[in-house]
Amino acid sequence: MTAVAEKIRNGVDTEVMFATLDAIKADPSIATFQFRARNRWIDGAHNRSTIRDFHAANQEDTSRAEAFVLDAGEPAILLGTDTGPNPAEYLLHALAACVTTSIVYVAAARGVRLTQVESTLEGDMDVRGALGLDDDYRNGFTQIRATFRIAGDAPEEKLREVVERATKRSAVFDMVSNGVPVAVDVETD
Amino acid sequence: MTAVAEKIRNGVDTEVMFATLDAIKADPSIATFQFRARNRWIDGAHNRSTIRDFHAANQEDTSRAEAFVLDAGEPAILLGTDTGPNPAEYLLHALAACVTTSIVYVAAARGVRLTQVESTLEGDMDVRGALGLDDDYRNGFTQIRATFRIAGDAPEEKLREVVERATKRSAVFDMVSNGVPVAVDVETD
Repeated sequence: MTAVAEKIRNGVDTEVMFATLDAIKADPSIATFQFRARNRWIDGAHNRSTIRDFHAANQEDTSRAEAFVLDAGEPAILLGTDTGPNPAEYLLHALAACVTTSIVYVAAARGVRLTQVESTLEGDMDVRGALGLDDDYRNGFTQIRATFRIAGDAPEEKLREVVERATKRSAVFDMVSNGVPVAVDVETD
Repeated sequence: MTAVAEKIRNGVDTEVMFATLDAIKADPSIATFQFRARNRWIDGAHNRSTIRDFHAANQEDTSRAEAFVLDAGEPAILLGTDTGPNPAEYLLHALAACVTTSIVYVAAARGVRLTQVESTLEGDMDVRGALGLDDDYRNGFTQIRATFRIAGDAPEEKLREVVERATKRSAVFDMVSNGVPVAVDVETD
């Protein structure tokens, strides 16, 4: 491998990665981020989020030319018309995506070239909770099972260490496992 | 309003809604659901989930003709190429979408016709946690603020009660607020 080829590992520019870590060490104020989503109800179980701006490194980010648009829905059995994945499915996707990116970044930092990261996530729910029929059941998933299949140019033990470190550092894994305080404000017209 | 017009409220078929609740009361086994997401790493911070099948009412659902496909990414400042919202933004969307649908369903059940539900969600994060630079900072958001703007044919107090009940019954609000046990299994080729 040439030096240039080594610089980019798993699609991550490791020089930029280590420069970013050094920049944060030199000025921790740039580590403060705020992410946002704006959502609008359309009809029934159909609603739509737009995601674009965020705050990072002491300024508003302007790098996104357009907003991302996400449609949510529910299948017929949950009274919707399947206008998009349902919110609980979006949560599983958020978790899968975050752990996957963490795996890719940790591997890049540790010199492991990956050839595959695939995952299957399952969440179990008794909807008597969310439907208000029985308080013995919580509203959300009782548990989530995530299976990651990973391959790369490192021994099995090292690949397992990468996944372990990645789950330990994943933002969404932390939030879904441990919870986050959510403050709700209501405005009526 | 005619009886037919009243049957559909906020885009929700209230007859089907109440029939669903009655069916679950008669046979609670149909309340057991399992949702799933399958994710595949593409390159760098780009990965993709497909969401289609789920288990409900004692059988595999087959109502979705196609899978939903969701692309995740990171902006340049987090070493990606903006191939989609990032996982933490997806989590905010999941939360907004779930509370919004809960508001719409609770309002439909209580005879409130809504004209607007909009929300803005913000999550604060110090990335020194997720980047492994300082264990004094958690990996995920320290807090989430959600502002809901709601309008409809009910007094302000009733609209506020609808939001309160909806957050109390939202599956994703429960999961994000309280956390869910996540079991991770790793398979190496």
